[in-house]
Amino acid sequence: MAEPATATEAAAPAVALLKDELDIVIPTIRNLDFLEMWRPFFQPYHLIIVQDGDPTKTIRVPEGFDYELYNRNDINRILGPKASCISFKDSACRCFGYMVSKKKYIYTIDDDCFVAKDPSGKAINALEQHIKNLLSPSTPFFFNTLYDPFREGADFVRGYPFSLREGVSTAVSHGLWLNIPDYDAPTQLVKPLERNTRYVDAVMTIPKGTLFPMCGMNLAFDRQLIGPAMYFGLMGDGQPIGRYDDMWAGWCIKVICDHLGLGVKTGLPYIYHSKASNPFVNLRKEYKGIYWQEEIIPFFQQAVLPKDCTSVQKCYIELAKQVKEKLSKVDPYFDKLADAMVTWIEAWDELNPAGAAVPNGKAK
Amino acid sequence: MAEPATATEAAAPAVALLKDELDIVIPTIRNLDFLEMWRPFFQPYHLIIVQDGDPTKTIRVPEGFDYELYNRNDINRILGPKASCISFKDSACRCFGYMVSKKKYIYTIDDDCFVAKDPSGKAINALEQHIKNLLSPSTPFFFNTLYDPFREGADFVRGYPFSLREGVSTAVSHGLWLNIPDYDAPTQLVKPLERNTRYVDAVMTIPKGTLFPMCGMNLAFDRQLIGPAMYFGLMGDGQPIGRYDDMWAGWCIKVICDHLGLGVKTGLPYIYHSKASNPFVNLRKEYKGIYWQEEIIPFFQQAVLPKDCTSVQKCYIELAKQVKEKLSKVDPYFDKLADAMVTWIEAWDELNPAGAAVPNGKAK
Repeated sequence: MAEPATATEAAAPAVALLKDELDIVIPTIRNLDFLEMWRPFFQPYHLIIVQDGDPTKTIRVPEGFDYELYNRNDINRILGPKASCISFKDSACRCFGYMVSKKKYIYTIDDDCFVAKDPSGKAINALEQHIKNLLSPSTPFFFNTLYDPFREGADFVRGYPFSLREGVSTAVSHGLWLNIPDYDAPTQLVKPLERNTRYVDAVMTIPKGTLFPMCGMNLAFDRQLIGPAMYFGLMGDGQPIGRYDDMWAGWCIKVICDHLGLGVKTGLPYIYHSKASNPFVNLRKEYKGIYWQEEIIPFFQQAVLPKDCTSVQKCYIELAKQVKEKLSKVDPYFDKLADAMVTWIEAWDELNPAGAAVPNGKAK
Repeated sequence: MAEPATATEAAAPAVALLKDELDIVIPTIRNLDFLEMWRPFFQPYHLIIVQDGDPTKTIRVPEGFDYELYNRNDINRILGPKASCISFKDSACRCFGYMVSKKKYIYTIDDDCFVAKDPSGKAINALEQHIKNLLSPSTPFFFNTLYDPFREGADFVRGYPFSLREGVSTAVSHGLWLNIPDYDAPTQLVKPLERNTRYVDAVMTIPKGTLFPMCGMNLAFDRQLIGPAMYFGLMGDGQPIGRYDDMWAGWCIKVICDHLGLGVKTGLPYIYHSKASNPFVNLRKEYKGIYWQEEIIPFFQQAVLPKDCTSVQKCYIELAKQVKEKLSKVDPYFDKLADAMVTWIEAWDELNPAGAAVPNGKAK
């Protein structure tokens, strides 16, 4: 549990669930040696690699993986002027991969994440757990004290309304991290040696009306249900902020999932996060976000989407409008971000014409 | 984990935390032999035993425990006509113990609950964990993905607003159950053999605005912060419903905690629940609750308390008024229950004159 599994330990029988319906999106600036460890679990799937930074650099992908790779030149070529909505020199560029995928499901993982072990020492097939999370309903309207009621050996407890037991479709599965926890720069600086060794054997639905800090390190979602809202914003090169790409997406998707009656789960699976990023560099990237979020979060907590927002796109365009109206006073950056949110939807719809009217996933 | 610890295994050093500030309340109809197993953990504390049913029966309490015992005659003598608000022939009578206690904290446990073991085989000191839960803040306004941020080895993750990290005072700690899960009668009938063997090593705050099914089997609370709202309603003899005593209290306390800015936690500690109650008997007690809750829960989800409700008592009287207004149409029972809620507060204030203005526990 406290150490990553070795590639040999991880060589459990590969369960290629949803093989033709899921893409793995990996943002990177380096050779993808980390895939060796994931081979038994990832090899059946198609990878979409989004190369960040210098496009002339060659990224080596281990033999035997089925992949497509996009660098900045590809992004500019495919999106033209709309490429402005895709971040450069920041892993936020990964959302380009969500856009070019044609699959129903996406799993995205960072290249410093390895296979974790459960308390029995068994290598954790993170992707399999995410798929289980996505394929079983969520229960956002009432809390179940024994956690995921759809898990083997569990159920709804006494007092859980029967009318809510069908649940709703799950749009997002947020996985966690053993070893290096996902801390902000101040916490990294204060607790440089803290490691997460606690394996919490639970998956739960984040209740309706509650926001959470969504981390992009180990994340799966249903692209058909929520894809157009999974925009990772404007970060990195030329922007005043970094390390808020996944947070931004998390606030947006949660407000939209709540509005459309979709579920967001967090908990299992764990990955083993090997390398904490430099806290000093992080502090420079984050410091504006750290005070901006004190205004952004109340904005999202109070955001109400009108009833005629019946598709993810409509919800997202409406959110962009509200961001422009209410957050531009925090910093002109939000004016630019609101425009980029609209550009993102335009680009999404251009690349996904059939998906222009993604229906909401309210349980039948 | 799947079996209870033996008394010998449980003989860990007793940590008599808050010894003079906590009472253990036990409702029972039989000899309290189950206390033998809890001796190392409970003996330092004062017990309040609320004897249910026939008051002429003698309840045997193992040697060495410091206790007071109230039977129905005592309740009638102490409360006079107001005794009508205390249930008879139902473990809901336990709330009389909350009322007569003079301590700051209450722990209540059923007499078919034994010491559970953690995955390492160590006996779990449930009371110690509840005390930890109550003494550390709650975080109801934003979800922390690594669960309780105040636990050793954990913290707030990246993206958690710094302004919310102080948290708020914790009013309630809801513990869970290994072995026999707390299922309703229909689920008991459908899954007679299901046992809870999953030890989830987490404590979490139930977010603001989210209701949960509160079970009274293994429950601790801060009497000063929320005591007057811990009324277990009218159940059992002469009432059309049973097994909704703790649920009723749970809905009420959650709405009031949300209003007053207090926290409610769930998760650890586990106890070992040994004996499922008879599902056929339970069905008879529950069936009205099963359909009533479909209207009761939306009522509580929509309940708004006015700003001038600044004490638990004021909140509770206001809730009683709303119950009368909005739930009496479901069944005349709720009219009677609303009256009993008012009687309960009158009795509480009579027995706790200084506590008539329990201040709200908003974090400073």
